[in-house]
Amino acid sequence: MHLIADNLRITKPDIQQALARRDPEPVQKLALACAQKNPWAIDVNTGPLTRNPESDMRFFIRAVESVTSLPLLIDTANPAAMRAGLESVQNPAVINGYSLEPGKINHILPLAKEFDTDIVGFLLDRESRVPKDEARRLEVALELFEKAEAAGVAKEKIIIDPVVPPLAWDDGIIQARAILNVIRTLPDLLGFNVRTIAGVSNLSTGASDKTKKHRIDTAYIAMLASAGLDYALLDIFDTGLVRSARTAGILSKETLFSWQMIPE
Amino acid sequence: MHLIADNLRITKPDIQQALARRDPEPVQKLALACAQKNPWAIDVNTGPLTRNPESDMRFFIRAVESVTSLPLLIDTANPAAMRAGLESVQNPAVINGYSLEPGKINHILPLAKEFDTDIVGFLLDRESRVPKDEARRLEVALELFEKAEAAGVAKEKIIIDPVVPPLAWDDGIIQARAILNVIRTLPDLLGFNVRTIAGVSNLSTGASDKTKKHRIDTAYIAMLASAGLDYALLDIFDTGLVRSARTAGILSKETLFSWQMIPE
Repeated sequence: MHLIADNLRITKPDIQQALARRDPEPVQKLALACAQKNPWAIDVNTGPLTRNPESDMRFFIRAVESVTSLPLLIDTANPAAMRAGLESVQNPAVINGYSLEPGKINHILPLAKEFDTDIVGFLLDRESRVPKDEARRLEVALELFEKAEAAGVAKEKIIIDPVVPPLAWDDGIIQARAILNVIRTLPDLLGFNVRTIAGVSNLSTGASDKTKKHRIDTAYIAMLASAGLDYALLDIFDTGLVRSARTAGILSKETLFSWQMIPE
Repeated sequence: MHLIADNLRITKPDIQQALARRDPEPVQKLALACAQKNPWAIDVNTGPLTRNPESDMRFFIRAVESVTSLPLLIDTANPAAMRAGLESVQNPAVINGYSLEPGKINHILPLAKEFDTDIVGFLLDRESRVPKDEARRLEVALELFEKAEAAGVAKEKIIIDPVVPPLAWDDGIIQARAILNVIRTLPDLLGFNVRTIAGVSNLSTGASDKTKKHRIDTAYIAMLASAGLDYALLDIFDTGLVRSARTAGILSKETLFSWQMIPE
């Protein structure tokens, strides 16, 4: 299982300020700290960047690339910002991402063909709502692949994000298990090795107790790995969570074992 | 997932001494400490008790029952000791266990009918070896159920133990995944809600590094829970392992969630 740092987010006040002041240092500092934890990639979550989408996105990409050559997930719903990111990025890039929402199908998905990149596909309906059950999720997955094919994007370029729901929802715990089944089922359903990605932090949204949040995330990430998840978006500074992810990832995918593989 | 303390073992020197001296105190102390950790049951692993099987087993059962009313797994390969245990036990009891070995089929399995108790069935071949792959494990499971039926033991009384292998084996990591698939597959294969039990400690046998052993066990127990395991045999004093087991157990089986369910 590949780990992706989800720490670089526009929602953090110091990152917002850095953008406003065009001061790359806080972004560089955070990206470098992430890179030092050896993730597979860094998610650059810029938000919609409604004012100056192109120059704002270029600021972020430039700042991050000045400190790391890791792959970057360009995480914005704004097609203009996404295009600017893909035009300026030097590191390997992944589009994060599209859904059945018409705006995304028409304006984000085609960029995967134009720039020949991988693209994350969210299991959300046309109104960007979470599907009600496992069957509906699988229908959405099929539709996402159909739309990709129609846009000339090869199915192997798609990485499906089943969108982990909060446990705090009425049926959150049942939905959390449906996510695991979807990850396990997709390769059989589609007849090829469908790649999957998931962010674990949403699961424990609303936890008043940090320790309990940590216990839940740590157990669930091992369950995601066991279901066959390929890419996990997580807080790369949460040492216990990262160890659980790496250990379960080894137990879930490797064919040979040695004690050296297990994190210290 | 129900947790069973695997801490009471004849292999511990102080427990061996307690038996030799007929001093119940060390056994009582350990059993009480286990009970205070709120397991579902305690495994009473007496070994074969070749010298005085009946009186030795009665000593253990009496000592444990003097401090707890928890269910007990009577864990011996000696049919005479097993019978003495079942005759003397007052707490709910489970026979641990039988396999395809002719001695076990002929002398242990019938005790489950005679005493109307649940019984653990090990996925081991007639020579008590671990099956080579998942398909062979499922064959062994079917044979175990056939033998039980022939002995008049209802299939609902059987709890299957897939026997977790050490990762240190050449193909240990592949076998460890086969175990997860077997747990997941058995209910579909048998057409009813087959119960399963597994001991996690064997997985990391031979680990020179306690920390790495802990990381492996903690990740794997969450994977076992996610596969649907009903009963986990573990070191009930390993706080991190127990928390992982309890948290993953909740995420894997419950239909309603509240933060109060998660261990402190």
